Amino acid sequence: MDKTCPQEYIVLAHRLADAAGDVISPLFRQKIEIIGKADDSPVTIADRDAEAAMRRLIETAYPDHGIFGEEHGVVRGDAEYVWVLDPIDGTLSFISGSPTFGSLISLTRNGVPILGILNQPISKERWVGANGQTCLNGEIVKTRSCANVADATLFAYGAELMEGDHGPAFNRLYRAAKRRRFGYDCYAYGLLSLGFVDLVADCDMKPYDYCALVPIVENAGGRMTDWSGNDLTLGNPGFALAAGDPVTHSQALEIMT
Amino acid sequence: MDKTCPQEYIVLAHRLADAAGDVISPLFRQKIEIIGKADDSPVTIADRDAEAAMRRLIETAYPDHGIFGEEHGVVRGDAEYVWVLDPIDGTLSFISGSPTFGSLISLTRNGVPILGILNQPISKERWVGANGQTCLNGEIVKTRSCANVADATLFAYGAELMEGDHGPAFNRLYRAAKRRRFGYDCYAYGLLSLGFVDLVADCDMKPYDYCALVPIVENAGGRMTDWSGNDLTLGNPGFALAAGDPVTHSQALEIMT
Repeated sequence: MDKTCPQEYIVLAHRLADAAGDVISPLFRQKIEIIGKADDSPVTIADRDAEAAMRRLIETAYPDHGIFGEEHGVVRGDAEYVWVLDPIDGTLSFISGSPTFGSLISLTRNGVPILGILNQPISKERWVGANGQTCLNGEIVKTRSCANVADATLFAYGAELMEGDHGPAFNRLYRAAKRRRFGYDCYAYGLLSLGFVDLVADCDMKPYDYCALVPIVENAGGRMTDWSGNDLTLGNPGFALAAGDPVTHSQALEIMT
Repeated sequence: MDKTCPQEYIVLAHRLADAAGDVISPLFRQKIEIIGKADDSPVTIADRDAEAAMRRLIETAYPDHGIFGEEHGVVRGDAEYVWVLDPIDGTLSFISGSPTFGSLISLTRNGVPILGILNQPISKERWVGANGQTCLNGEIVKTRSCANVADATLFAYGAELMEGDHGPAFNRLYRAAKRRRFGYDCYAYGLLSLGFVDLVADCDMKPYDYCALVPIVENAGGRMTDWSGNDLTLGNPGFALAAGDPVTHSQALEIMT
């Protein structure tokens, strides 16, 4: 499948990341209202305004493109090109003052992610994955090799992964890894793309949680699928397994199934 | 008890933080060897050289002071003043490329922490707690009030806390909190001192893990003790419970006992 991303869309994606950062940064470590969503996850004016700013830019530049955002929903979801936006992935980190959240921006073509940006506006780190390479602040980055899950450092969101129907599969992987850490959202995938983390597993993901991360991980040399080894596209939300080394990815899938 | 810290010791503590940062920063996100310790926790040349640099400065300035460091042990442990050093608290974060580790520097007098520094050399954040105030990069910071544990955001190291003899006590607190996050070492206490996290609980701590944090938390308006409500001094390592609001601290102790 052709995953080429036209340069003009990459240029726009950078402008979206800038716009989101301009909204978010002044609100970091400020006493702002925390609004509980239906699932009791926190959201703030920073989430909402950052996404609105990005949507305005897309509507102006490419009014025929679709948009799928965490805060303001879907428009033209059946368009060839759909922008998938999470203004603040890791809102709990954001409201806790921890600079490990990120803005996630993806462009999908016919449902397949062809561009991913992870932008951390406080540390001023921007990952961009597209067209065969992943860069952090303009420097090409690569995942590291990892011969065995038993040598791997595993990062994951939190102890929620250990419970529920998916708990047993996750717990097998958790116990098999050499080192393990909870507490990361998108930032874990950024560290994986740099070659400092080997495995990241997550559950209950929405398209705006993973679409941007697939091009970042895969263009850096890694592999990212659902827990059954299927490609992650707009249409199959739920579970994600990323590995810096495709060999580790295959091993992890075996351990989990 | 008099917890006054002479200004000249605060000046030295800043020099120690600078010296540790000068060793650590160039090694961040570099491919450096990871040495396993007896307990299989990771350590690197950054940990060892950063502590050695700090020890040299102390030996030159105050050769009669004691030193208790994570990497190079204890000298003059029965001195009136003992410096307690953890060059990299959160070595797993450090080797994973995450800027949420910190250098911890404390001065104890007769076993009581009277000065604490938490230095994050990548984000260039330095917390200093002493003499009735806590500052982040020179600005006074305060914890926030939190009327109930049911409203609290709880941060903690990891799922290890849920297991073992102390698991039931921790799990009661974990379930009672409104929001919870694993994955933080010392940085969680820094966020608590800023008023963005309400509770932090940890187990299996050594003096170099907590001595610096007590003055940071308490001089910002919080309370930090062991899980029985006793003051944390050089002599009673093991468990730590910090709260931004002393009311929440009392409630948390009740929930845990």
